[in-house]
Amino acid sequence: MRRVHERAVYDRETIDAVLDAGLICHLGFVHEGQPFVIPTLHARLGDRLYVHGSAASRTLRSLSDGIAACATVTLVDGIVLARSVFEHSMNYRSVVVLGTATPVNEPDEKDAVLRAFTEKLLPGRYADSRPPTRQELKATSILSLPLDEVSAKIRTGGPDDGDTPDAELDVWAGHIPLVVQPLAPVAAPDLRTGIPVPEYARSYRRDGLTG
Amino acid sequence: MRRVHERAVYDRETIDAVLDAGLICHLGFVHEGQPFVIPTLHARLGDRLYVHGSAASRTLRSLSDGIAACATVTLVDGIVLARSVFEHSMNYRSVVVLGTATPVNEPDEKDAVLRAFTEKLLPGRYADSRPPTRQELKATSILSLPLDEVSAKIRTGGPDDGDTPDAELDVWAGHIPLVVQPLAPVAAPDLRTGIPVPEYARSYRRDGLTG
Repeated sequence: MRRVHERAVYDRETIDAVLDAGLICHLGFVHEGQPFVIPTLHARLGDRLYVHGSAASRTLRSLSDGIAACATVTLVDGIVLARSVFEHSMNYRSVVVLGTATPVNEPDEKDAVLRAFTEKLLPGRYADSRPPTRQELKATSILSLPLDEVSAKIRTGGPDDGDTPDAELDVWAGHIPLVVQPLAPVAAPDLRTGIPVPEYARSYRRDGLTG
Repeated sequence: MRRVHERAVYDRETIDAVLDAGLICHLGFVHEGQPFVIPTLHARLGDRLYVHGSAASRTLRSLSDGIAACATVTLVDGIVLARSVFEHSMNYRSVVVLGTATPVNEPDEKDAVLRAFTEKLLPGRYADSRPPTRQELKATSILSLPLDEVSAKIRTGGPDDGDTPDAELDVWAGHIPLVVQPLAPVAAPDLRTGIPVPEYARSYRRDGLTG
C-alpha cells in the first residue's frame, strides 16, 4: 500500500514552522546507558534550537562540552479512521533534531532565549513582564542544538485504504481534526486588584497549533 | 521560592489516568550512542505500556531481547503567566516510564494492543472496523514496557510568585488553560456513498485531554 498521506520533509521553512508552532519539545539524552525523554520549553533562534536544560542538568554537570541529544517537537493534528483496524493512524507534524546539546553560558544569549520562550508562549508578554536579573539568568540552565541534522515527518488527510478492497466495506472512513483552544485567562488568586487582563492574553489564539 | 504548583506523583491511579488520556507518547531509545525520540501511539493494558515499534525497528532487529527505552506521555494544560519572565511556565501532566522495551510476538496479544490503540483514539471504533488479519498482525511491530519504574510530574494553577516582592508589580498574572477540541469529522474523498458518520465519531469529545 502506498502511504500517500505521509511524507518526510527536509526543507527548513516547513521544519521551522513546526518548531515555532509547537509549545513544548521532548528532549532525549542518555545517562549511564538509560535514555531519558523529558518535556521542556523550546524556541528556535535562527539556526539553533534552544531548550530548557534543568531536566538534563544532572547529566550535564559531568559533561561540560555537551551531550548527544535528540529534541522532538510533535503537533497532533487529528485522528485517521480507516476501514480496517490496521490502517488507523494519526495526522501529525513532527520534527526530530539530532546533535550535541551544549550549555549556553552568555547572559545576553540566555536573555534572548528567555525572551523567545516567553514570546512563543504568548506574543506580547515579554515587554509586559519584569525582565530577568543577572542572578536569574545565572540560575537558568539552557541548552542549544544546531539545526544541522533535522528532518520532519508530516501526515495529513484521510486514510490510505481507498484503493484497496477495504474501500468496498460498509465502514465510515475519514479523519477528525483536533485543534488546541485557549480558554478564558484565569487571574492568580493573589493578583493585585485593578490590573485588567491584557489585550494580548484576552485575544490569544494558537494559530497553527493543534494537539 | 517554593514550587507550590508543581509536584511529583507516584500513585498508579494518577499515572494511569495520564497514560490513558494522552493520544501519543514519545519513545526514546539509543542507537549507536545517539538518542532518538520518536512520537508513536501507545496504550496501557494493566501493568504494561504498549507502543508502536516501527520507529525503533531498525534498532530492535539486532537486539531481540529488548532495548533500554523511555516512554513519555505529556499533556499540555496551559500557559502560566508570572510577573517575572523568569517564572513563566506551563501547566502540564507528564508521565515517564523507564525500562526495557521488548517486542510483542503473540498474535492474540498484538490484536489486544491494536484494539486498545483503536479504542483509545476513538471509543467504539474497533467493533465497527475490519479486524486485523494474521498477516497484518505479523506486520505490526509492537513493543511493551513494564510499568515498574514510572513517575509523573504535574503542574497546575497560577504562577509561584505570589509571595515574592514581584507580587507588588503592576503586571497581570495568572494562567490560560488550553484544551483539545475535535472538529467535525471529514469523510474520505473515496468513501462509498450512503455511509453516515457514526454516532461515536459525531459525538466525540476528548475528556481530560488537553494540549
